[in-house]
Amino acid sequence: MYRARIEVSLKSGHSDPEGEMTAQSLKELKFSAKNVSVSKVYTVFFEAESREKAEEAVEEMCRRLLANPTKDNYRFEIEEAK
Amino acid sequence: MYRARIEVSLKSGHSDPEGEMTAQSLKELKFSAKNVSVSKVYTVFFEAESREKAEEAVEEMCRRLLANPTKDNYRFEIEEAK
Repeated sequence: MYRARIEVSLKSGHSDPEGEMTAQSLKELKFSAKNVSVSKVYTVFFEAESREKAEEAVEEMCRRLLANPTKDNYRFEIEEAK
Repeated sequence: MYRARIEVSLKSGHSDPEGEMTAQSLKELKFSAKNVSVSKVYTVFFEAESREKAEEAVEEMCRRLLANPTKDNYRFEIEEAK
């Protein structure tokens, strides 16, 4: 069993409405927030035959489901899990 | 200026519908996903007079806006930013 921690964030230049709303709310609460961006972390437990296969699987998960190649960046770490 | 990286995740025992849907979608794509959980990372740039004040501000941002104390855990890192 492997555990992947996959972080998906917006590429620069793409609008981040959730980040903008959060910055606005923080300002309304009198915090001096200048800029907020929001990303998502997926923690996935999955089976793979080897570490190499695990990395290939996570790349494919990102490309096919978790990240939008037009607007998202992704990065991940994988470790063996019990 | 400080930069806080704040990760908000569900406490264990709380349902994670987005994680469940993601696991389901991964299974439909023939990945051997067993379990998926989703958390959010807020990257906030903000002004503070000192590191101590910056930490207090981020604690308060979490308590008042970013995390729901009933169901969320949060953790953060702060660094000085230009």
